[in-house]
Formats: sequence, structure tokens, C-alpha cells
Amino acid sequence: MNPITLAVDAMGGDFAPQVVVEGVCAAVNQSDVKILLVGQPEAILPYLKKESYPDDRIEIVPAAHAIPMDASPKKALDDFPDASMVKAARLVQSGAAEALISAGNTGALVLSAARNIPRIQNVHRTALAAVYPTLNELQREDIFALILDVGANVMVEPENLVHFALMGSSYASEVKGIPDPAIALLNMGTEPNKGGPRYSETYQILSDLPHLNFIGNIEGHDLLRGVTDVVVTEGLVGNVAIKTLEGSAETVMGLGKMAFKQKFIWKIGLIMLSSGIRGLKKLTDYQEYGGAPILGLNKLVLKCHGKSTSHAILNATKLAAKSIRDDLTGSMQRSIRTFEETITRPGDFFITGYDT
Amino acid sequence: MNPITLAVDAMGGDFAPQVVVEGVCAAVNQSDVKILLVGQPEAILPYLKKESYPDDRIEIVPAAHAIPMDASPKKALDDFPDASMVKAARLVQSGAAEALISAGNTGALVLSAARNIPRIQNVHRTALAAVYPTLNELQREDIFALILDVGANVMVEPENLVHFALMGSSYASEVKGIPDPAIALLNMGTEPNKGGPRYSETYQILSDLPHLNFIGNIEGHDLLRGVTDVVVTEGLVGNVAIKTLEGSAETVMGLGKMAFKQKFIWKIGLIMLSSGIRGLKKLTDYQEYGGAPILGLNKLVLKCHGKSTSHAILNATKLAAKSIRDDLTGSMQRSIRTFEETITRPGDFFITGYDT
Repeated sequence: MNPITLAVDAMGGDFAPQVVVEGVCAAVNQSDVKILLVGQPEAILPYLKKESYPDDRIEIVPAAHAIPMDASPKKALDDFPDASMVKAARLVQSGAAEALISAGNTGALVLSAARNIPRIQNVHRTALAAVYPTLNELQREDIFALILDVGANVMVEPENLVHFALMGSSYASEVKGIPDPAIALLNMGTEPNKGGPRYSETYQILSDLPHLNFIGNIEGHDLLRGVTDVVVTEGLVGNVAIKTLEGSAETVMGLGKMAFKQKFIWKIGLIMLSSGIRGLKKLTDYQEYGGAPILGLNKLVLKCHGKSTSHAILNATKLAAKSIRDDLTGSMQRSIRTFEETITRPGDFFITGYDT
Repeated sequence: MNPITLAVDAMGGDFAPQVVVEGVCAAVNQSDVKILLVGQPEAILPYLKKESYPDDRIEIVPAAHAIPMDASPKKALDDFPDASMVKAARLVQSGAAEALISAGNTGALVLSAARNIPRIQNVHRTALAAVYPTLNELQREDIFALILDVGANVMVEPENLVHFALMGSSYASEVKGIPDPAIALLNMGTEPNKGGPRYSETYQILSDLPHLNFIGNIEGHDLLRGVTDVVVTEGLVGNVAIKTLEGSAETVMGLGKMAFKQKFIWKIGLIMLSSGIRGLKKLTDYQEYGGAPILGLNKLVLKCHGKSTSHAILNATKLAAKSIRDDLTGSMQRSIRTFEETITRPGDFFITGYDT
């Protein structure tokens, strides 16, 4: 088996380049991937020198700039056309690497990827996915569900939502090994006609697809239950939903910390619960998952959390290597092609009415 | 002071008519409101007979039907044109009552109200509001924030979002007594240009309004912080956001219950935390708040939670009476009129482009 080559943005993330360097060194020590580490050599080398690893499997590709985490995406790409994540995207586009991994500025990464890596045929919108922990009512091996789109677009058409569903289904079956993954549409009610014409049309198309396990609409309070493997949504709605979940988790932890300080008896109570809290934290650790994909492109792009540790970077390289071995992109391409060939599409097939 | 007359849907809510009857009896005993109790007399009377209250202040208005909690709104109103909540809306429309209170089917209530009660001049979309508990970073007297729209519409135009902001501001200042309430737009990022043309245009108009304390965009993770008094959003996004919050709260409580059963030491730990948990529950009790308004109509309509207790119904009558005494509707009417008179509105003032 030839080693899989991954382009890794050394400069992306709150703790870059240190955790990225440590993560990719662990990756080449633990598996046979090859890493093109893209970034400022003078920033990378001090950390790289501290590590021991097979020399021939990490190659530094110099990039003059790093895109700041809080920069406006469009402006950042204009200002830094040779930034590390852009160069990494070009390495993937040229075929020098098979996947792109970055923990950098999300919007800039979506834009870099979209500008440099061709989309899957017939796919007109890419989707940013996120993974989040659930109560796992489906009793899968891991407790994470995939939600897409969480912000690559504001809103999209039924056709795009259907593509998101197909790509999410491919991801869950290829990468997570779920034979017939459950797909749900995030909506404001469970009835098929909820959410106006765009959503009811999407519901109808998804219901009619023979090879998709569409379980129908779910609502906000179903997200944490884990009743579905994939949640299909539009960027604005998905972004608000996933950040509301994150905010709720932060609030609960914040209340726990406050309680710990406020009363002695609460402190003791929390200590007695600590094994449970630790277990919960481990179960819900985003770092374990590595990263979330940007779907819709002909090459894999993984976005790691800005707060990624070296462990998260390592896991992202594993996730990327597995996705490539399982031919995730090929699976998505076939799924989209089958759909496009099968549906009859009169000129007005996709209604563009926006509201009830 | 003449008694304020409220039309109350006796048949709405999971525990109707019992809790509604008990709630309105408490209301007439504790304040000088008059109640038109709309519903099936044979269902109401057995509970009413158990209560003692001033006879002349509760009047039963017979309605043959009750709309089921889970019925499709449009179909339910077609099937039951004389349902209790429809009759109650007509009593408000005719002037026989000054406000409508119902814990019934939300969609049917929004529709009943919209069909029977005229909208405020120039307001083309009503908004369903919800109140939710926050960490109260603004340090207000109560910890609840108002979010609207949470589902009366799917999506709306900038003009409608601006009206929601103005009405929410009136509500927070008149009903909650906050002098200069903070208003925020729920978006997928904080920058003014986030969310596509509709949102950036809304942002611009809100920023330019002299009498509105617009604090800018907030994201999903800001919702629980309590950085704003009013959260302005579209129905689909707001519905998903508020239900995600509800789901998170339910999940935390569910995990607590599971932990209580699983290990003895966890059980003891939770018992030691119980005073804190009780305090938190009391602080975050939706029942205390009574109900959330449907805004945009010339009369007040309050939607109580389907799981409302008699205490919630009582609080809803108090909230309604206070809103009427404070002339909430008049304040909203003036605020909308001032806005409409002030803005220059060329034909293309409101861009209708939907996406980036």
C-alpha cells in the first residue's frame, strides 16, 4: 500500500504550530501516512526539532503567511493569497496530497477549499459538517452524530439539501461503518409539510429516494437524543443549532464550577459525582473525533476545532487516511450521480418559493 | 378602575380544563380581572363547582369543540370553526374581552389569532415569542429573555424582522420595566455582514434606528448568557434554537436522574447538590412567567406552555392584566408608526435577495 499523503496546515488553530507539529509527528510514527506540513518554516522547525520521527515522511512546504483565526474570510484570502491553508488546498488540487487538514479560520478554510478544489459533479453547494455528542438512542458504536450544513451557506435550495443528505449518508456508512445510516431533516415540526415549500419539497424528495434511510423531520429537542446518524439542515439554522448546543454544554460546566466554589456541601457533592463527570467528558470529547469534513468537493477536507490539541490533530490524520482508504469521495460521487440520473427533472422540478 | 376582561381558552393545554379552571379562579380571587371562560360547559362545570370565587367574575362562554393539542392547525380550524380558542379570539376581536389566553395547540392559536384579530397597522407578519431563562449577564431583575419569532413564520423579510425588534423592545420596556432594552439579532456570526443580504440589511436598519438599543448580532452560544433582553430571529431559526435549548435542559435533567440510579456515591453527591438544583429549577421555572405573547396584533394574545399548571395560568392572567394596564399594544403601535413615518422607503428599499 502506498503511503497516503496529507496536506496539513501547520499554522491553523489556537495552539498552532506546536500542537500541529506534535500531532503529525505522532501520526507518522503510528501509521504510514506522509505529511506535507504547510507553513512558516521558522515557526515550525523549533517544534519539529524536538520530535523524533521518520524524516522522509514529513516534508515542510513553506508558506509565507498564516490567516488569523478571527480574520474576515474573504478579506484574509485577498490579503494573504499564499497563506498556509491556501497553499495546502493547492497541494490537494494538484494531486500532490489526497486530503487537506486544518484547524484554522473556518470561513477562510471553506473559501480556500471551494476556490481551489473542484466540486463533485452536479453538486453546486459545499456543506460544512460538524460532529456532536448525543445520548445515542440508536445505540451506535460511538455517540457522535453528523450535522450539515453548519455554515458554509446561509440558505440553500431543496436540491442542495438532498445532496447534503446523500453525502452525509455516504460519510456515515463509509467512515463510521453504519450500514444504513438514518438521515433526518432539521425542521420546526415533524409533519411532512412543515417549514414551507422548500422544506416540504425536500421532505418529499428524500422520502422517495430508494437507497436513503430518511426518517423524516426532527426538531431542536431531538438533536441530543441521537435518533439519527445524520442531521440535514441549512447553514444558518445548523450554525445556530450547533452553537446553541455548545453554549448549553458550556453553561452547565460553568454552573458546576460556580457551585464548586459557592458551598462546601456542593463541592463535596460534585467531588462524589466526579467519576461520572469525567466519564461524560471523555465520552463527549470532540478531540477524540479529530475533525469534521467539508463535503461536496472531489477531495477530502477536514476542519479541526480551533482548540484542537495534538491528539485531535493525530485523530484527524487517522480519520483522513481512513476516509481515503474507504474511498469516501468516490462513494459520494456515485451516490450523487445515481440520484441525478434517476430523478426526472422537469424545468420546474425544484420550486423556488421561499415561504408559506 | 374597571375590571379588565380576559378571554381564556378553557380547553387548551395538556391538563385542561382542570388547571385552567383552577388558575382563573385563583386569578379572580387575587385580582379584579373578569374572565370569559370559553369551552365545553359539561367539562368545565365539575371543576368550577369545587372552587369558591366571586360568581360575577367568571362567565362561561360555551364552545362546542376543543382543538386537539397535536392536530394540524389549518385542518383543525377547518374542522372545528367553533372551537374554544377560535371563539375566544372572536370575543377579543369584538371587544368583549381585552386579551386572549390559551395553553392550547400553538399553531392553531397563532392562526386563530391572525384570522380574527386585526394586525397593527403596517405590520404584515405576527411573531410568536418565547421566554427562556439565561445566566442574566445583564443583571436584570428576572433572568428571562424574550425571543421572537419562534415559529409563526418560516422566514421573513428585513422589514418584518425590524418590526419584531420594535415590538420586542416595547414588550421588554412596558411589561418588564426595562428602560432601554437591549435588542440583538440571532445570526451565524457577529460581523454586520453575516447571514447574507437579508440579515445584513436588517442589521443596517436596526443600527440606524435612533430609539432602539440594538447591540448587534449574537450567536447560538450567546443565547444562555443573557447578554440581551430581546433576541430577534426568523421562525425556523428561532424555533430550532428554543427547542434545542429545551432539549439540552431535558438532557441534563435526564442524565441527573440516570446518575441517581446508577451508583450510590452519585446518588449521595446529587443529594448534596439538591439545594442548588432546586434553586436552579425555581429560577428557571417557565411556569413563573405565565406565557409568551403573539406580537403584531391590536390585542394581546398570550400563549401558555402546553404543560401549564394552574399557577402558570394564574401568572398568565397577571401578565395579561399588567400588559393591558401598561398599554403594551398602544406602545407597539406608536413605535411601529414612528418607524414607518421616519424611514425613507424608496420602492427598492427592502432588498429581497435571499442568499449570499
